[in-house]
Amino acid sequence: MFIDINCDLGESYGAYRIGNDEAIIPFVTSVNIACGFHAGDPTTMRKTVSLALENNVAIGAHPGFKDVLGFGRREIKISASEVYDLVVYQIGALEAFVKAEGGTLQHVKPHGALYNMAAKDKQLADAIAKAVYKVNPEYILFGLASSEIIRAGKRYGLKTANEVFADRMYQSDGSLTPRTQEHALIHNPDHAAKQIVHMVKDNKVISNQGEEVPIQADTICIHGDSNNGLSIVKTIRTTLLQSNISIQNFNQSKQAKQ
Amino acid sequence: MFIDINCDLGESYGAYRIGNDEAIIPFVTSVNIACGFHAGDPTTMRKTVSLALENNVAIGAHPGFKDVLGFGRREIKISASEVYDLVVYQIGALEAFVKAEGGTLQHVKPHGALYNMAAKDKQLADAIAKAVYKVNPEYILFGLASSEIIRAGKRYGLKTANEVFADRMYQSDGSLTPRTQEHALIHNPDHAAKQIVHMVKDNKVISNQGEEVPIQADTICIHGDSNNGLSIVKTIRTTLLQSNISIQNFNQSKQAKQ
Amino acid sequence: MFIDINCDLGESYGAYRIGNDEAIIPFVTSVNIACGFHAGDPTTMRKTVSLALENNVAIGAHPGFKDVLGFGRREIKISASEVYDLVVYQIGALEAFVKAEGGTLQHVKPHGALYNMAAKDKQLADAIAKAVYKVNPEYILFGLASSEIIRAGKRYGLKTANEVFADRMYQSDGSLTPRTQEHALIHNPDHAAKQIVHMVKDNKVISNQGEEVPIQADTICIHGDSNNGLSIVKTIRTTLLQSNISIQNFNQSKQAKQ
Amino acid sequence: MFIDINCDLGESYGAYRIGNDEAIIPFVTSVNIACGFHAGDPTTMRKTVSLALENNVAIGAHPGFKDVLGFGRREIKISASEVYDLVVYQIGALEAFVKAEGGTLQHVKPHGALYNMAAKDKQLADAIAKAVYKVNPEYILFGLASSEIIRAGKRYGLKTANEVFADRMYQSDGSLTPRTQEHALIHNPDHAAKQIVHMVKDNKVISNQGEEVPIQADTICIHGDSNNGLSIVKTIRTTLLQSNISIQNFNQSKQAKQ
Repeated sequence: MFIDINCDLGESYGAYRIGNDEAIIPFVTSVNIACGFHAGDPTTMRKTVSLALENNVAIGAHPGFKDVLGFGRREIKISASEVYDLVVYQIGALEAFVKAEGGTLQHVKPHGALYNMAAKDKQLADAIAKAVYKVNPEYILFGLASSEIIRAGKRYGLKTANEVFADRMYQSDGSLTPRTQEHALIHNPDHAAKQIVHMVKDNKVISNQGEEVPIQADTICIHGDSNNGLSIVKTIRTTLLQSNISIQNFNQSKQAKQ
Repeated sequence: MFIDINCDLGESYGAYRIGNDEAIIPFVTSVNIACGFHAGDPTTMRKTVSLALENNVAIGAHPGFKDVLGFGRREIKISASEVYDLVVYQIGALEAFVKAEGGTLQHVKPHGALYNMAAKDKQLADAIAKAVYKVNPEYILFGLASSEIIRAGKRYGLKTANEVFADRMYQSDGSLTPRTQEHALIHNPDHAAKQIVHMVKDNKVISNQGEEVPIQADTICIHGDSNNGLSIVKTIRTTLLQSNISIQNFNQSKQAKQ
Repeated sequence: MFIDINCDLGESYGAYRIGNDEAIIPFVTSVNIACGFHAGDPTTMRKTVSLALENNVAIGAHPGFKDVLGFGRREIKISASEVYDLVVYQIGALEAFVKAEGGTLQHVKPHGALYNMAAKDKQLADAIAKAVYKVNPEYILFGLASSEIIRAGKRYGLKTANEVFADRMYQSDGSLTPRTQEHALIHNPDHAAKQIVHMVKDNKVISNQGEEVPIQADTICIHGDSNNGLSIVKTIRTTLLQSNISIQNFNQSKQAKQ
Repeated sequence: MFIDINCDLGESYGAYRIGNDEAIIPFVTSVNIACGFHAGDPTTMRKTVSLALENNVAIGAHPGFKDVLGFGRREIKISASEVYDLVVYQIGALEAFVKAEGGTLQHVKPHGALYNMAAKDKQLADAIAKAVYKVNPEYILFGLASSEIIRAGKRYGLKTANEVFADRMYQSDGSLTPRTQEHALIHNPDHAAKQIVHMVKDNKVISNQGEEVPIQADTICIHGDSNNGLSIVKTIRTTLLQSNISIQNFNQSKQAKQ
């Protein structure tokens, strides 16, 4: 039994710094690197790829809307075909740095508004899955657990990774409780760790409404920039290991099987 | 004896159209496709790659400064390391479309101010050559004939293509006569064609000062958007063929040799 | 009885040209100049302001979403407060050129997706009207006839101009027939002119469903870049004058009253 | 005898934060607000203008090259006419927020590479001074003490403010010691304060070469984001007041005279 832990990396932009990349990277097994559309720039991408390789974590492309000002968090109404194009573009850009630094790409995870829209919109989800498939059918598609993006990936025969959140409460329909609602976030590291173990061991989560809801957990998204983000991830790691769940990415898992 | 003919393609940007891609493509053997920094956008890139494959021309990445407003023609003072980064990025982005559409990339040719700066500045030239080498040492580096960029490519063991211009007058030191000077441009298609044949057959060009200057010509840059651009390329093609110089790109040339 | 005729101007961007500004300007009385967010750049803005002053037409700011790639036509989900900010910014930028060239600003008309969203969304409409009011309460707010933007302008005590389209069919609820539907566009210049005269003289329009619908027409939007745009505007002008409707902007109308 | 103290403000961009605006503003009398080209965005501009008015400091526009990625610090080769255009644009954009918030603009100070280029290049300096003059001849032009930009301002009849730096060493020709050289920066707050008092009282500065060099000091540029920036400005303020030099901006100075 194993689980991957991923975080977003390389979100700085020129003189502007976001994130705490060096501090968070020892605690994760996969990283999603911004590709210059919503965050990141060529120099930041090269350095972040290099940092990831030094830390022996698996690398994913983290494509988003072309919107640095909005950090990729604003919905932009574009066609599925344009979404396909911007995902192909960004995977390619990151791939080149990974290749130049001597590594390989493991996965692709859409960012921000694109992530959220692709979780619900079948056409956008399909466009993203197709983009990944056309660039390299070996890449793993990361997305919200049990959402449209996971279904789209399966349609294209891609390996997929259902992403869950340690610090977010779920609804009885399996969706995330919106941040605008009360009890959307879990601040207590122990509660977060307990939720994760329940997800991984039992494929279940207790919803905000108190029901036990089925969920598939392949990878956990954590954040290094939130106030107690580091504290949460440390507690999660300890609790997972105590529960005999190993923490490894999909490359490592594949090698372990062989 | 053979020569390649190349032109810039895919320079539109969203609703903005530049160039006459469908009209010029039948007359060339290689195309340089803008990669979204100085021109082009993901959708334009996909369509242009597709157009190139349909027309059976060889595809090159055409990276430039991140400056759509200036169309990549304005010098921006950045470090050689940043130039390396932006070239890696742009090659990767185009590569992904070429791969997704089922083709392969043949070459890389820097654009505009980056092209001109890299012709003279050894450090920038080195950064570009290194970027090409690190992404794929099989790619051919296009640049101004006998300039720093060609020398940089050779240092990295890259195949290089010395680019010459049919419609530009040369100086006795082998450089192009600046557009700000009189007699910088050749408007007469016959004169342009004659200059090209002299370059290819005799490795020489008559300079603006009347001297015969040595020059290496591997590929001819032509433009489809100038008023008599199409007329010039047609005359060049006819004259080259009459002079028993075949017109083919480097992929075709390699296959011919095998 | 009078009517204003307006068109969008200054939509070029660096080396990229859009529109036919010199050809269309003799036929209009007001122009909406792009402010650099969806189109236009500082140099284009200065030249377009200068062209407008030479042609003695009234000048308006034409703010849009920050999205040159999408030409401001893509909906971007931003808060009303952010819309306020981007409208203030763009009015100010254009105002400076108008002032520097010795003119005065007459009006503000939102562009593209912002125009369409503000026609229906009361909060966005309010934000735009507030922005105009805070920069200069004398400026006239242009917007879709009888829409939220007009109501918002009136709430702030602004002068408003109900905009109608000569070449578009209307629905029985007074809205424009979406371009995706059949019969959305009027291609026949005589039909377009007849519709306009009916609007101006009788405050009515025949809808796509055959009903006579009330409409207020203060200014007509025409386009110089469509195939028969110039032909339509010429016919409209002739027909208006024959119907004893004078063609003038709001500055001229005010002077006429004094 | 009085001196102004200014600092750059409003340099955040969307989710990206730079600077320590609330901490530094109590110590200055004038602020230079980024206008969205090299830093700042419409929302940041509105908030920063509002912060400035609350703190009763004078407001200046801080125009730079259109280059968020390079933070306006990279030289971009553009014509003097384009520089004129981008300065007019940015002054106007900031002016609109100042007007909307009920304030008035005091000055204009170019940023980064534009500041440095305009200190030496007479044509660029002229373009900036002309832009200020055309938008509002009452605005004060801030620039490097005794440089081309000050001379250009005087040619247009503008009020000018010679800017000096507390934490930089000067050369015997009156220019700043480049940051790439040793002894370019003054880290000791007492030394910085002593240098400032010598400048203001005696119109002189001791150069890096040990010579006493004439200098005109109208405003001191300080930085709130450097490690000991706040410590330096506090020491400077105390030392200035002990030396009977009052600290006030040009609006206050004008009122004092009346």
